Amino acid sequence: MSYSDTSHAVLLETIENAQAAFSLYKNCSLEQRFSLLRAIAAELKNSGEALIAAAMRETHLPEARLKNELGRTVFQLESYGAAAAAGRWLDATIETRPNAAGAAVNLRKTLVPLGPVVVFGASNFPFAYSTAGGDTASALAAGCTVIVKAHPAHPETSTLAAAAVAKAVEKQQLPAGVFSHVYGASFSVGEELVKHPLVKAVGFTGSLRGGKQLFDWAQQRKDPIPVFAEMGSVNPVFMLPAQLQAQPSLLADQLAASFTLGAGQFCTKPGLLVAIASPALTAFEQQLSDQVKRMIPVHLLHEGIAEAYGHHRSKALQTAGVSVLALSDKEAASQQGQPTVATIKAEQWLQQPHLHQEVFGPYALLIACANSKEMMAVARTTEGQLTTTIMASEEDLQQYRSLVECVKEKCGRLILNGVPTGVEVCKAMQHGGPFPATTDPRFGAVGEDALKRFARPLCYQNWPNHLLPAELQDENPLRIFRTVNGELTR
Amino acid sequence: MSYSDTSHAVLLETIENAQAAFSLYKNCSLEQRFSLLRAIAAELKNSGEALIAAAMRETHLPEARLKNELGRTVFQLESYGAAAAAGRWLDATIETRPNAAGAAVNLRKTLVPLGPVVVFGASNFPFAYSTAGGDTASALAAGCTVIVKAHPAHPETSTLAAAAVAKAVEKQQLPAGVFSHVYGASFSVGEELVKHPLVKAVGFTGSLRGGKQLFDWAQQRKDPIPVFAEMGSVNPVFMLPAQLQAQPSLLADQLAASFTLGAGQFCTKPGLLVAIASPALTAFEQQLSDQVKRMIPVHLLHEGIAEAYGHHRSKALQTAGVSVLALSDKEAASQQGQPTVATIKAEQWLQQPHLHQEVFGPYALLIACANSKEMMAVARTTEGQLTTTIMASEEDLQQYRSLVECVKEKCGRLILNGVPTGVEVCKAMQHGGPFPATTDPRFGAVGEDALKRFARPLCYQNWPNHLLPAELQDENPLRIFRTVNGELTR
Repeated sequence: MSYSDTSHAVLLETIENAQAAFSLYKNCSLEQRFSLLRAIAAELKNSGEALIAAAMRETHLPEARLKNELGRTVFQLESYGAAAAAGRWLDATIETRPNAAGAAVNLRKTLVPLGPVVVFGASNFPFAYSTAGGDTASALAAGCTVIVKAHPAHPETSTLAAAAVAKAVEKQQLPAGVFSHVYGASFSVGEELVKHPLVKAVGFTGSLRGGKQLFDWAQQRKDPIPVFAEMGSVNPVFMLPAQLQAQPSLLADQLAASFTLGAGQFCTKPGLLVAIASPALTAFEQQLSDQVKRMIPVHLLHEGIAEAYGHHRSKALQTAGVSVLALSDKEAASQQGQPTVATIKAEQWLQQPHLHQEVFGPYALLIACANSKEMMAVARTTEGQLTTTIMASEEDLQQYRSLVECVKEKCGRLILNGVPTGVEVCKAMQHGGPFPATTDPRFGAVGEDALKRFARPLCYQNWPNHLLPAELQDENPLRIFRTVNGELTR
Repeated sequence: MSYSDTSHAVLLETIENAQAAFSLYKNCSLEQRFSLLRAIAAELKNSGEALIAAAMRETHLPEARLKNELGRTVFQLESYGAAAAAGRWLDATIETRPNAAGAAVNLRKTLVPLGPVVVFGASNFPFAYSTAGGDTASALAAGCTVIVKAHPAHPETSTLAAAAVAKAVEKQQLPAGVFSHVYGASFSVGEELVKHPLVKAVGFTGSLRGGKQLFDWAQQRKDPIPVFAEMGSVNPVFMLPAQLQAQPSLLADQLAASFTLGAGQFCTKPGLLVAIASPALTAFEQQLSDQVKRMIPVHLLHEGIAEAYGHHRSKALQTAGVSVLALSDKEAASQQGQPTVATIKAEQWLQQPHLHQEVFGPYALLIACANSKEMMAVARTTEGQLTTTIMASEEDLQQYRSLVECVKEKCGRLILNGVPTGVEVCKAMQHGGPFPATTDPRFGAVGEDALKRFARPLCYQNWPNHLLPAELQDENPLRIFRTVNGELTR
């Protein structure tokens, strides 16, 4: 089956429907939003077999992984919906104390949805970060209507997921424009969506190039709009000397598994391993190499990813100073990614900016530093990251305080003695970070706080109680936590 | 005294000092931040007389107003500092429940400061939105270091305020780089500041042209950074029929006072008055005209503002369809602004986009609509606003629900039967709105939530208790509200 690009006329109609539906959906109760998200979760479960079969065909991801991911997608919908209904995220605030001059005050602030949101899903998460994924769940929970552009690498999966969402929307007796689904292999579809005046925000998960392009279009509009694009991250791992010495093999085992998990196609893949040259590092290299050699190359998500992996990996390996530490013994067939770990001296890495960027796929680069000063220079040189990992003993942490402080300024999640892959979906998670990890470090894409990307404060001044949204009414009918005259109360 | 532009070399040094100071200041306790803000407030009070004298000379604002504004500035510093110390704004979140697969979880999220922030103050608030004003207070409270570019229209006031801040920084034994002050009448100083890689955010209050330019520079960086620019707003007032009929004179009195308050130099000045033609509107016009005629022209803030007012007012008055409703009987002397209210029919206003923009100064435009449909067209055509005001009876509100819904999508504060001037400094306030009111509708510039512009979430994974910031430690030593395993608790 082929999926041709949505025509200009249909795009316009889609956007107008999304705005018309927004006029209604924005005033649905929080409970109604929760109900919609639960219904979408239920429809996804109903279509689970077909969804997984399609995704296996289109992404080459194994069944177990996809089952797991679908479960996560369902959990996101349900938990973001529950968070929306719980209402605490609104940070509802009421001030009725007279001001310093003795004048009456009646100010009540809540969050309102931004408007129609365009979502560009990810190739590497056909469920959890695509059509009915985290951005869609966040935007719907925040009260926005959503237009999804199907990812060209898994249009069938996207179409099935979109049908499930549409069914839920219909069953909830909401207008169809609450959720729309369009196709666009060409850039122009995305451009038209992002530039349309009725579109009020954008969610994106994917490459730096793609995300930055959408961001630029959105900022060049007559009225710039918020874009949350989650893009590239190399997720450096700093292995400090005492910890490395204490357990070189364990670290090698953990990191080998982490950088090749899902064929290295996770945005939190540890792509840079940084350590100071030492006998322990040699032992680590040996064990890491043994692990990598035993790896089996697997199919990458799609042709484009496989090509890009081939290209960026070759370019990296051909860079002066880079040498292969280990490849999987089994050679990669067409469209597979060959697990690879390379190494370079820090002084050379520092001079090659293209090596500072993500290589998407089962590839990691080990940077060997001559001393702690060089390691600090590497830390200073890295860009914004989703995650940074420190492998350290107590003693290391004492000695490398300034390194920890330096990397803290550049990442959204700081991990001690763990691996960055494995992103828990909960409010305590931060999945975001300074550019180029994302386009706005103040927001995140995972957990209920992801809703905040798509809402803005609105202050009601002097409105009578019955015309206020429920969360601002005197009686607190929703029984949510609110700040009333300076006190947090419910 | 003349204030020459800060040289390139000194700018670079200033930015580097701001970064060096940030490395230390970011780890000060919340209580230490509060202490700094209190100290700044105290120094401003100490320098009160000199500050007010300088501001009177430079801005022509009357003493009573400036005293009031200085009091507000002190209150902002103290209340934002207190809010920072209270720690609830951090939304500290801890998750230690095992995940669905039974694996241990230890995720703890708080907010960390973005880094050095550049602040561009406003001409119309020489204290409250300038050197030691709301943006500086927010950024310091959030843990950022600050570089202020003095407003070229009040460099002496800015220099005195900066000296007060610097004294407080010194007394608190903090590095001088926590707060810096530079001069730049030329655009290039602002450009250099905003484009420097060590600068991590920008706060601006002023014109659409100025704010948009800074925003564009910031977004065109290799690594775009957050810019919160509060810019133009016409703050429309929709006078609905029954309310207008019930009290045309009262409305005219309120609005005449509001649009000329502070010589119309408030960002919340009601610049567009919208009503349906009727005998009541005629009575309103009469009373409004009587009021405006009695007004006394006053000195505008500075030459540039006076020139711009002259220019934009003339351009508006010369537009086809615009007629003067009333001018102050007393003609304006040089550098004064003549209070002016003009009128136009809605069908003509709709076709003249330049009339949709703010005219900064004591000017308002009354739009006479033929019917409710035209009024709705006006509502639909207005851009993003800081405020929108509805003058309405209960009956009006029933009848004009879709108008209210329409304007709600476009403003940060929605006022019923009041005037938009008069911005309470409290958490329930929203001072912000969709573009062009600001560059990001999800943030605001007034009240403690203004801190959120300058901080970002950081998640600590698996860190031992003693290496966590106080707000994330098991014992909750700060006794702040936190979300621990899903429960809000302290």
